[in-house]
Amino acid sequence: MPNYKIVIEYDGTNFVGWQHQENGESIQAALQNALVKLSGEKVTIFGAGRTDSGVHAYGQVASFNINKKIETEVIRDGLNQHLRPNPISIQNAELVNDNFHARFSAKKRWYEYKIINRRPPLTIDVNRAWCVYKKLDVEKMKNESSFFLGKHDFNAFRSTHCQSNSSVKTIESIDIKNKGDQIIFLVSAKSFLHSQVRIMVGTLVDIVKGNINKTIIDIINSKKRDSAGQTAPAHGLYLKKIDY
Amino acid sequence: MPNYKIVIEYDGTNFVGWQHQENGESIQAALQNALVKLSGEKVTIFGAGRTDSGVHAYGQVASFNINKKIETEVIRDGLNQHLRPNPISIQNAELVNDNFHARFSAKKRWYEYKIINRRPPLTIDVNRAWCVYKKLDVEKMKNESSFFLGKHDFNAFRSTHCQSNSSVKTIESIDIKNKGDQIIFLVSAKSFLHSQVRIMVGTLVDIVKGNINKTIIDIINSKKRDSAGQTAPAHGLYLKKIDY
Repeated sequence: MPNYKIVIEYDGTNFVGWQHQENGESIQAALQNALVKLSGEKVTIFGAGRTDSGVHAYGQVASFNINKKIETEVIRDGLNQHLRPNPISIQNAELVNDNFHARFSAKKRWYEYKIINRRPPLTIDVNRAWCVYKKLDVEKMKNESSFFLGKHDFNAFRSTHCQSNSSVKTIESIDIKNKGDQIIFLVSAKSFLHSQVRIMVGTLVDIVKGNINKTIIDIINSKKRDSAGQTAPAHGLYLKKIDY
Repeated sequence: MPNYKIVIEYDGTNFVGWQHQENGESIQAALQNALVKLSGEKVTIFGAGRTDSGVHAYGQVASFNINKKIETEVIRDGLNQHLRPNPISIQNAELVNDNFHARFSAKKRWYEYKIINRRPPLTIDVNRAWCVYKKLDVEKMKNESSFFLGKHDFNAFRSTHCQSNSSVKTIESIDIKNKGDQIIFLVSAKSFLHSQVRIMVGTLVDIVKGNINKTIIDIINSKKRDSAGQTAPAHGLYLKKIDY
């Protein structure tokens, strides 16, 4: 039974997220429906990152098994044809060995968060970035962000809906770049807690704005969600790539 | 009578363009309506570049005279408030001297054109770039593009609707950069003919795809629109900035 790996780009704005919810269409369901049309087989497509509603992806990865063997170019182009007019696009499809699983085989997940730091409202980048009006001290944000690196109990940095048994995670890299009024965060870890990246970004913003008078170390040590800052909006977040 | 200069960003997708047309709303009309709400005065707002429907701007410049003297921050923030929910955003407003005119005082106009060169359809960048499926030879495109530089009769590179008396224009700079699957054109001139940048880009693409067996020099010398290539789609074009 062939096992396929696909790399997916999407605009998450009008979806309920990767996974099924009662209140609208999920990316996963749109993909599964397209696969039924292409192959006649109704199977589960497993994604590497369960992105929330509004979160985008340049490099989501998913895997699935079907009985029929289909050329990988046909998987890619056929799914893209049946996905229309959904803003979901298969970038690549390949055959992988039987033990490959998009979620469980992932070694590292890369997320990007985009802030546009200016007073005038967004137009071209609306739903593509978080517009923060007050001028942010990016150097201070960079300094504070370095304390996220390494293995910590990130209980203060997870959504109250997070279902993970353990809140211990290891941040492998965090990098903040700014160019003009854009501030781009790039962060990687084997895995993240629910809303972890958004709470990390929201907390950095709240610290440099002076809304919170604590350091990242204080907040990590508190292990309390209410000592951290706001959850940055979903529409600034991008699942960038998955390493295997 | 104070003279104001404003810098404007917009997503041109759902507008008929800068100027009034019968079939929908123009950027200019949306701005003039917002100005009436802010100042009570109905005046013409003159734009530096008359962008077509679908064309975007990061740095369109416009100027207008009103009787009332209003703080420039209030012009910026007040217009932005009254422009909602239109994807039009005033980036800056300033008082300028009486002889300043956004269109006639412009010394140089900068346009950017964005191609994404890949087979899978666009999602996040839909309506923000031209997706060209066939792999393009960017080095060949760069070489050919250099023949646009300088003063030429660009009659082959203007829309049949162009109303300009003379088709002689001077391209001051043209630069093509590529990164990943993105190809970005940046071109500057004192002024351009109608659709000139889009026909220049479309012709370069048609040459490197082999759809046209002529050089840019041949096409310029022909002075005939039908010897040039296609008009690249409006949604890849950005009015980047105006120098005064």
